[in-house]
Amino acid sequence: MIDCHGHYTTEPAAMLDWRKRQIAAINDGAQSPSPASLKVSDDEIRQSLTGKQLRVQAERGISTALFSPRAGGMGHHIGNARTSLDWSVVSNDMIHRVATLFPRNFVGVCQLPQTPGVSPANCTAELERCVKDLGFVGCNVNPDPTGGYWTDPPLSDRHWYPLWEKMVELDVPGMIHVSASANPNFQATGAHYMAGDTTAFMQFVTSDLFRDFPTLRFVIPHGGGAVPYHWGRYRGLAQDMKRPPLTELLRNVYFDTCVYHQPGIDLLMRVIPIDNLLFASEMIGAVNGIDPETGHAYDDTKRYTDAVALSDADRKALYEGNVRRVYPRLAEKLPA
Amino acid sequence: MIDCHGHYTTEPAAMLDWRKRQIAAINDGAQSPSPASLKVSDDEIRQSLTGKQLRVQAERGISTALFSPRAGGMGHHIGNARTSLDWSVVSNDMIHRVATLFPRNFVGVCQLPQTPGVSPANCTAELERCVKDLGFVGCNVNPDPTGGYWTDPPLSDRHWYPLWEKMVELDVPGMIHVSASANPNFQATGAHYMAGDTTAFMQFVTSDLFRDFPTLRFVIPHGGGAVPYHWGRYRGLAQDMKRPPLTELLRNVYFDTCVYHQPGIDLLMRVIPIDNLLFASEMIGAVNGIDPETGHAYDDTKRYTDAVALSDADRKALYEGNVRRVYPRLAEKLPA
Repeated sequence: MIDCHGHYTTEPAAMLDWRKRQIAAINDGAQSPSPASLKVSDDEIRQSLTGKQLRVQAERGISTALFSPRAGGMGHHIGNARTSLDWSVVSNDMIHRVATLFPRNFVGVCQLPQTPGVSPANCTAELERCVKDLGFVGCNVNPDPTGGYWTDPPLSDRHWYPLWEKMVELDVPGMIHVSASANPNFQATGAHYMAGDTTAFMQFVTSDLFRDFPTLRFVIPHGGGAVPYHWGRYRGLAQDMKRPPLTELLRNVYFDTCVYHQPGIDLLMRVIPIDNLLFASEMIGAVNGIDPETGHAYDDTKRYTDAVALSDADRKALYEGNVRRVYPRLAEKLPA
Repeated sequence: MIDCHGHYTTEPAAMLDWRKRQIAAINDGAQSPSPASLKVSDDEIRQSLTGKQLRVQAERGISTALFSPRAGGMGHHIGNARTSLDWSVVSNDMIHRVATLFPRNFVGVCQLPQTPGVSPANCTAELERCVKDLGFVGCNVNPDPTGGYWTDPPLSDRHWYPLWEKMVELDVPGMIHVSASANPNFQATGAHYMAGDTTAFMQFVTSDLFRDFPTLRFVIPHGGGAVPYHWGRYRGLAQDMKRPPLTELLRNVYFDTCVYHQPGIDLLMRVIPIDNLLFASEMIGAVNGIDPETGHAYDDTKRYTDAVALSDADRKALYEGNVRRVYPRLAEKLPA
């Protein structure tokens, strides 16, 4: 059972301190800490996970999580390209250590050193390092590195093509995931995340991106934002605009199951073909409480997906098969 | 049977021509056409509706629509405060003529002369004119007058309070409705609309707006954007943030039924209490085609709501009672 959407939200304090020092030095690059200056012991990493992600995985029967740096922490809008690169290296190296210490539990997915106004060509070297040297299987792509001002080009723009080319070459998918919001209009996890997911989907609907990159694959998290709930609207908009039917997009676009109540999961699984759904929970993530209506954690999505009637084959696809197909490099890390 | 969400999307060509001339003169105010210069005959107005909204209303068994200017046409980001005021006067006066010619079929809801960076206090005179002189029952509030750049303050900011005070004084609700997007990241009807709806809701979750304005009421259209689909997420976020339960928000916030497929309507009506749902279709609006899966118009939402099992009392609330409660001035226009 593989959870395709986990973040290292329990990272050691020293790592967060490093980031604080980096941000404090934004206007004085000479004071910026080097990535190599961060010292965290293996025991600190073990402790950061033992009573947390590892415990919850065991309680819920999840074998492995695709694991990336904290999404809200990516902060691509902070500082400049060097800030973003150093922080990405620190963050990705820490994920690599996690995945090395607990290779059955965690497989790496990387943060990219995106920066507003800077070509994503800038991200390909770090992506390649993470995939080839560190054994990562995917990346997170922030569709709005400006942190809620949306002044960079849409994902369909040629601005992004160098990154798409590298993802295709390496055969790794991207999860669409915004980071923190610097815009007071957008609360992060309830507004900016949902808007980012929905906006990215519509950029795919209105463009020929997948004609140019037929094997490029994206996972839209948080159950696809507003998309499955409004599937009729999106089918109708595509039709009005003389775009291909949405089923064509489903060759390249997948949705995770981070929807935190039973009616939402029921809708998702009624509307989206099972082959396009990847089990996920984003545990110890956006929503941490216990739902008083059920007595269980809001983010214990396996309870909701288990409650949906599925054939054995479809359940295996949802829990393991689909994620192996979308992230083919998983086969090396986790032989079937 | 009252549809709370209709726009005059079949407006006479002369009105659109007036707007084109106005936009062409943006950099030379002296050339701007006066609102009084627009000439449209009553027959032209009748013709613009006869084979269109009036036909569809009759076909679907809808008695009356709350009717406002075309949402995508408001274009608050275009020009300056004078541009926005003149265009609002033209647009609202045309709605008034529609409602005067067909008083059983249409009741007015106004466009506000919002402008980026300008206090919404600027909107209160036009709101008062529409309500007191023209008999309108509500207004549309654009949470992002910048057209997709979101650089004005959130709805909870005191920036907006003069408008909220006037809405409370007049006892009229506002429908949250963005206009066209000037940002290439956001396709309007599939991305910007959904993001606007969801973002506004989260601004309400995270603020004490309704403690300051206990009788202020908003309708979030398009089935609440992403909100009902992620109701568990929003309940959990409110809980994590030590905000009141969402049920408290439901004293002030309502959702319409502009969701264009059966699974979406089923979810909406399963999750949101019936007293907070207002029937709506936004006909001849965002999605105009026939759904090949059903053979009926995507936006024929009555087919979906009719298919949901409801008591007679609940169905009457959804189709008439709730909208009369949220828009109390309807009683003057349409005696029960």
